[in-house]
Amino acid sequence: MDVMEAARAAKRASTVLAAADTKSKNAALASVAEALTRRAAEIAAANAEDLRCARETQLAAPLLKRLKFDEASVATAVAGIRSLIGLPDPVGQTLTATELDQGLDLYRVSCPIGVIGVIFESRPDALVQISTLCLKSGNAALLKGGSEAAHTNRILAEIIVQASEAAGMPVGWLQLLETRAEVTAMLALDTDIDLIVPRGSNAFVRHIMDHSNIPVLGHADGICHVYVDAAADLDMAAAVVADAKCQYVAVCNATETLLVHQAVAALFLPRLRDALAAHHVTLIGCPRTAALIAVQPATEADWRTEYLDYTLSIRVVDDLPQAVEHINTYGSRHTDAIITRDRATAAAFMDQVDSANVFWNCSTRFSDGYRYGLGAEVGISTSKIHARGPVGLEGLLIYKWKLLGNGQTVAPYAAGTKPFTHRRLQRSCPL
Amino acid sequence: MDVMEAARAAKRASTVLAAADTKSKNAALASVAEALTRRAAEIAAANAEDLRCARETQLAAPLLKRLKFDEASVATAVAGIRSLIGLPDPVGQTLTATELDQGLDLYRVSCPIGVIGVIFESRPDALVQISTLCLKSGNAALLKGGSEAAHTNRILAEIIVQASEAAGMPVGWLQLLETRAEVTAMLALDTDIDLIVPRGSNAFVRHIMDHSNIPVLGHADGICHVYVDAAADLDMAAAVVADAKCQYVAVCNATETLLVHQAVAALFLPRLRDALAAHHVTLIGCPRTAALIAVQPATEADWRTEYLDYTLSIRVVDDLPQAVEHINTYGSRHTDAIITRDRATAAAFMDQVDSANVFWNCSTRFSDGYRYGLGAEVGISTSKIHARGPVGLEGLLIYKWKLLGNGQTVAPYAAGTKPFTHRRLQRSCPL
Repeated sequence: MDVMEAARAAKRASTVLAAADTKSKNAALASVAEALTRRAAEIAAANAEDLRCARETQLAAPLLKRLKFDEASVATAVAGIRSLIGLPDPVGQTLTATELDQGLDLYRVSCPIGVIGVIFESRPDALVQISTLCLKSGNAALLKGGSEAAHTNRILAEIIVQASEAAGMPVGWLQLLETRAEVTAMLALDTDIDLIVPRGSNAFVRHIMDHSNIPVLGHADGICHVYVDAAADLDMAAAVVADAKCQYVAVCNATETLLVHQAVAALFLPRLRDALAAHHVTLIGCPRTAALIAVQPATEADWRTEYLDYTLSIRVVDDLPQAVEHINTYGSRHTDAIITRDRATAAAFMDQVDSANVFWNCSTRFSDGYRYGLGAEVGISTSKIHARGPVGLEGLLIYKWKLLGNGQTVAPYAAGTKPFTHRRLQRSCPL
Repeated sequence: MDVMEAARAAKRASTVLAAADTKSKNAALASVAEALTRRAAEIAAANAEDLRCARETQLAAPLLKRLKFDEASVATAVAGIRSLIGLPDPVGQTLTATELDQGLDLYRVSCPIGVIGVIFESRPDALVQISTLCLKSGNAALLKGGSEAAHTNRILAEIIVQASEAAGMPVGWLQLLETRAEVTAMLALDTDIDLIVPRGSNAFVRHIMDHSNIPVLGHADGICHVYVDAAADLDMAAAVVADAKCQYVAVCNATETLLVHQAVAALFLPRLRDALAAHHVTLIGCPRTAALIAVQPATEADWRTEYLDYTLSIRVVDDLPQAVEHINTYGSRHTDAIITRDRATAAAFMDQVDSANVFWNCSTRFSDGYRYGLGAEVGISTSKIHARGPVGLEGLLIYKWKLLGNGQTVAPYAAGTKPFTHRRLQRSCPL
């Protein structure tokens, strides 16, 4: 495949898709849902072939589980498309409206970003989800799935492309890349591709971020912290840390490091050790921690490690500023929580910790688009611009300024003979 | 100067500044205004020294004019600070509020981006403007001004740093870089610097964009178009094109290329030639244009050229799709206008042209933060994410998610024993 030509075609399609009305986009989504349902057996057969190859190459059991996409998975994906159809069109929303002068009205209106490059690992449901999110938001997309799922991805993309183009969506709006070389080529196409959304392991995302000039929406590490303050309810703290660490260890919002205020460390740490005992959590700690409970000695590297396992690093800190400094130095700007009864301390923590999600008296595991009620999740971003934390459909949108006049020139305003009114309007852009 | 150390210090200061309350930020701005006023003569003397050096090195007259910063300029800058003090604090605004469950409330709250690297050319007023915008929005900043303005920039930065730090702002929040090597060093510090705002010539901005992994808010080229449709009012079209081309040629929102629908070219182009005659505009045109009026022949390069001069390139197009294709191919995503009486054609143009500003029946010269009524302008962005077009204070802001609980863990929600309520709340984050 000529990736440059694919990106050009996607760019051309994106201008048409940007102007597509809500009805035709929803009709295309309905056609996609219908086609996926009709061809579910074919999809399951392609997936069985991927599973067979994966077993032959001794793919690990958790990866095999993520790769599986049977008729029930198709039904789940189709249910997702049906609920997406029900969401309001995020394109064409008037965000602000200002009269600059009589008959000269300025509207800031939401619009698609353009062409999105999406790279994801084994789960084929990601292909269906992200391509339909792009369609709903009027974005063209180049997709690359995991090579283990090649057969499944190929038939899914073929069905989505056929059904949506037959329903009137512009040719080229969705294209599937199949090789690593094509991904490398895509990462260089910053003229035609506007945003990269990588979904996968942190090494993978880091690689993408380091090898493209195209903006990236995503996160690499998830080094999340819980800070147990001097004024914490220690029972609550033990329960929250146990949940944040153990409820599901293999995810980015699981806690990796615990910080404990020195004033409560002697009381809290033995209690925590007991709370975690049932989960057989490996504890790694600083010297002050080691003086209180049995731990393996922590090195500097531990503070930068995302274990994704039943392992917790622990540091006793002097005070809130040291906790904040630790998190801002070693954290990944993902999700960090404070446990305290003191409202002012909580406020200071939440203002000073430079993370996408800052929590007071609850588990870091809540940072998730579904739990936040976003409806659809594009991904979790640790970027400092555009979109941060769990990102819904609005992460695939930007705005443009539409100015509607009747022949106005700048000259009389520049000369001061005509003033601007700059009056806020309470209406939507009429076109 | 050790730029890495400076960036670290700015990062540390940024976490304190992020938590600064409105009153103390405004008090610091008032101190800055007072100190600038008190030391206006000193500033003017430093600027006189820069002007003397500039004259010796034969700096061009327009650059000399931009370099000038006398006591009257100080007064203008101070007036800008006073109006900035009057603006609402953009930090801490609750953007959305959702109850996830009883006693578990999620708020999306505006916050500073962190550390902004600002690079600007000769105008010293940019230093005052951007540093006070950063202070108001709670961002730390590393600044680099033009070397022609070294003396002026040095005393301005010194005054702003002294006055704001004496008023309680954290040490290191504002630092001045003075050499090109320091800028090169800064562009590599993507761990500590969150956003680069370059203000200057397009070659300069392009260089910055190509040499940093840090996100850039700005624009390089400004290749703006006016498209005169078949259904245009031709008198209006001639007046708008004359304004868009000639009212001020040296700016990014001046029009560089005119596209004319073939159906009206024979009628319109002679009329336009006459309208531009008084300004001695050099006309460059495609073969179809040349068949109608006297022009120099256009080459492919002309469509990609920002003349910033009394020069206009002209192309006759078949129809709207060809005009859109031309703009999306050769334009710079800045500002493009259509002149037409046909509402549906205007709507299609505005939806399909992939530019920050799309105008109907008015001059491209309106795309400007002051004219848009934004209050303060950070710059004009042609990026596709975060902020687009003229960018006000909100371009220096992002948000964080604050989740306030009373000990909630994820386990019961994951097990399905507790449901989420996801109820929209009509209140601001209490902390």
